[in-house]
Amino acid sequence: MSKPFASTPPPPYYAVIFTNQLSSNDHGYADTAEAMAALAATQPGCLGLESVRDATGLGITVSYWRDEASIQAWRDNAAHAVARQQGRDTWYEHFELRVARVERAYDGP
Amino acid sequence: MSKPFASTPPPPYYAVIFTNQLSSNDHGYADTAEAMAALAATQPGCLGLESVRDATGLGITVSYWRDEASIQAWRDNAAHAVARQQGRDTWYEHFELRVARVERAYDGP
Repeated sequence: MSKPFASTPPPPYYAVIFTNQLSSNDHGYADTAEAMAALAATQPGCLGLESVRDATGLGITVSYWRDEASIQAWRDNAAHAVARQQGRDTWYEHFELRVARVERAYDGP
Repeated sequence: MSKPFASTPPPPYYAVIFTNQLSSNDHGYADTAEAMAALAATQPGCLGLESVRDATGLGITVSYWRDEASIQAWRDNAAHAVARQQGRDTWYEHFELRVARVERAYDGP
């Protein structure tokens, strides 16, 4: 990821909020996560991505999308489906995923 | 914060997504951030909070709320307003704040 903030258009658009705790078995995770972030950025309707992980393996990634259809298309992407299954089977101790419609946005200071 | 995941009810509810980069002048930030998280948790309509910050000072905090009215009431809280102003004046190099309506949610693995 080149920059930490997504340059999103004026709302409305969609956010996928993915909060997750890596397990102790995170072999291969970093490479796959980087590849998936790069691939997501090329998908139609992807507006950007913001992602932070701390030293305990707790992470929040928020990806932004033009509409529900582009979220669904990314969900159906074959490489992404394989990566998600690896995540469920191995990498994630727990995750919460929420799909939300962004209604207002501000930046600062 | 006692646990990393918010125990949110079935959607719909609201998420405030706050992505921010701390400046080099973060004196006092950690104490205030902890106090504000504790205070937010006591506000009517607050459903929980998830927060991660990495070693570079990049952070994402997502707070969850029952409705827009509870977000507005928290915004109008006097102690919170003082903290936000300190953030704008001193602590944050940049931030993006987005208010979104959560429509679907899943957890796993």
